Amino acid sequence: MSAVRYELIKKCGQTGARLGKVHTPHGSFDTPAFMPVGTQATVKGMSPEELKGINAQIILSNTYHLYMRPGEDIVKEAGGLHSFMNWNRPILTDSGGFQVFSLSDLRDIKEEGVTFKSHIDGSKHFITPEKAIEIQNDLGADIIMAFDECIPYPCEFEYAKKSLERTTRWAKRCKEAHKNTEKQALFGIVQGGIYKELREQSAKELLELDFPGYAIGGLSVGEPAQDMYDMLECTVPLLPEDKPRYLMGVGSPDYLIEGALRGIDMFDCVLPTRIGRNGTVLTSQGKMIIRDAKYARDFTPMDPECDCYACQNFSRAYIRHLLKAGEVLGIRLTTWHNLRFLLKLMENVRKAIMDDRLQDFRNEFFEAFGYNKITK
Amino acid sequence: MSAVRYELIKKCGQTGARLGKVHTPHGSFDTPAFMPVGTQATVKGMSPEELKGINAQIILSNTYHLYMRPGEDIVKEAGGLHSFMNWNRPILTDSGGFQVFSLSDLRDIKEEGVTFKSHIDGSKHFITPEKAIEIQNDLGADIIMAFDECIPYPCEFEYAKKSLERTTRWAKRCKEAHKNTEKQALFGIVQGGIYKELREQSAKELLELDFPGYAIGGLSVGEPAQDMYDMLECTVPLLPEDKPRYLMGVGSPDYLIEGALRGIDMFDCVLPTRIGRNGTVLTSQGKMIIRDAKYARDFTPMDPECDCYACQNFSRAYIRHLLKAGEVLGIRLTTWHNLRFLLKLMENVRKAIMDDRLQDFRNEFFEAFGYNKITK
Ligand SMILES: [Zn+2]
Ligand SMILES: [Zn+2]
Repeated sequence: MSAVRYELIKKCGQTGARLGKVHTPHGSFDTPAFMPVGTQATVKGMSPEELKGINAQIILSNTYHLYMRPGEDIVKEAGGLHSFMNWNRPILTDSGGFQVFSLSDLRDIKEEGVTFKSHIDGSKHFITPEKAIEIQNDLGADIIMAFDECIPYPCEFEYAKKSLERTTRWAKRCKEAHKNTEKQALFGIVQGGIYKELREQSAKELLELDFPGYAIGGLSVGEPAQDMYDMLECTVPLLPEDKPRYLMGVGSPDYLIEGALRGIDMFDCVLPTRIGRNGTVLTSQGKMIIRDAKYARDFTPMDPECDCYACQNFSRAYIRHLLKAGEVLGIRLTTWHNLRFLLKLMENVRKAIMDDRLQDFRNEFFEAFGYNKITK
Repeated sequence: MSAVRYELIKKCGQTGARLGKVHTPHGSFDTPAFMPVGTQATVKGMSPEELKGINAQIILSNTYHLYMRPGEDIVKEAGGLHSFMNWNRPILTDSGGFQVFSLSDLRDIKEEGVTFKSHIDGSKHFITPEKAIEIQNDLGADIIMAFDECIPYPCEFEYAKKSLERTTRWAKRCKEAHKNTEKQALFGIVQGGIYKELREQSAKELLELDFPGYAIGGLSVGEPAQDMYDMLECTVPLLPEDKPRYLMGVGSPDYLIEGALRGIDMFDCVLPTRIGRNGTVLTSQGKMIIRDAKYARDFTPMDPECDCYACQNFSRAYIRHLLKAGEVLGIRLTTWHNLRFLLKLMENVRKAIMDDRLQDFRNEFFEAFGYNKITK
């Protein structure tokens, strides 16, 4: 039996979006779900209790970073990632593929695996699909990911095809290497760039390997939004109804809603934490550059509609002061708010699915947030 | 009537140390008290709720820093510092004198006041005793401090004498300028370097001005510990029994205990937050450099005897990892612990006074912490 199980609760009568629950060895999470990213075994600035307080039900951590520092052996010795970071809810680890391909110089891709240099000390490393699984087995997340090649955008059809076929072969090797299937569910990753026929080929090949869940990778890497939506529309219908679907690296409000509309169950992105640290906050009325001088004497909350600790207790003027002064509390408060904003957005998305009105919700949200209408 | 009132609860039968309470417009705090420092209207890394959770009953903020950024006008417009930073317990602000004399280049001291350059943008400022009070009136702390000259160590007798006499004249001007006596208590500051007769002169001159509390300044600036103790022993007995006594800028565990032993009621220091950020933690067994490689696989708490959130939930190995990786949560946890360590120490000091055994407590603490015995 697989370590995770997807339970479909209902489909939105207006859009076909799915409301569900994913059951894992560390409890369940509601879908569609946004997963805050805890790159180095910590969601930047947040404590585990604070994450629970804003209804984070699952978080993601990065295999590449933990492999580099502190090393998966230390995490394993601590009793796994849940114990190491004191988070007893579900965790997903990525495979490290994305970081190997985006962070390191001088990588060399062979059929056997990838040689790359550490972004920390320049040391040379060789990662194979088997090694990526072994590390993730040591980390002990509830959901782990197959090792894939993340191709850049744009990418030629021929290379995208060659790459996805290798990704399929790597996925097979990952499956064979995965020892801990009762406690960790291994997801396959559909690749294929922005080519519909490649996405279809990738999905079909991976379906034959029968993974307990499927991710869609290689999107939100610079392509136009419409290309992403096209890829979702051709890929999602091929994926099994009884398994979770995870759109990797996506976390802007519009993409979360548009992804849910197209049948996606899980999302992750560093966006809310990263822009928070830089002083940008997401509000019900759109983005706000809180460092801006116009907030120097603004004693209202960042978002009057928000229920988070930051908005309940502190003013724009105070948070601006903290950020200008380089104070840690400033970063904490913007991060806290941004994460709560997206987690609350997902609560609203789930409620809209329950009420068969996700399309209406999307239109209302986009209107208030100030997005230009995006062609569906 | 003065804004603050000192209530003596009892004296330690073994040492003469005072157990008391200071009543302010924002509630009371128990003495001897350690005041965490919130330089820029935030105790670095901590939220107000977290400070309350570790039993911080009063905090200190720095007039110089708030004058520079965001400006006392903004704090005033926010409703004062309590409202601006969302802290509803007592606050003390210093006068800015210490920062003017330690942070800025090119200061020029005249009888009228001090000209100095901002450490942020190099802009030129002129602060008089009247201006220092005006700023502190705008900030609205419960306890405010007279503007004094902080002389360096070592310092010639003649300059120390000339300086303390000017500090007395400035203290008089501060008292005359202070408009908000019902809500803010102005403390005078005894100076005089490490010269007993100057300390006595300063105390006597200030006593004539009848302040609601007295501070001892210009200590813990590099002089030998014994010099500090000598100064306390000659100064404290001159101060009135019915008013609080505040030893400025002191916060190492030994100085806190030795100060309490000599009749001090209030202390402040950036030490616990500053060393925490650098990866040093105070424990019942002494200082610990948590970044040290020997803690990489140490899955025990920083201090097994500590009741703080960090020690209750995270291991040395995890906190070391966070600090090595430059993660904010690491700084939060070491700061949290260090502050709790000192606040708990003060709880124990107060209990020891109540039980007439502060000298015994001192000896036990020094033994466990590993201090060399210091001549009393
Ligand atoms: Zn908020
Ligand atoms: Zn602790």
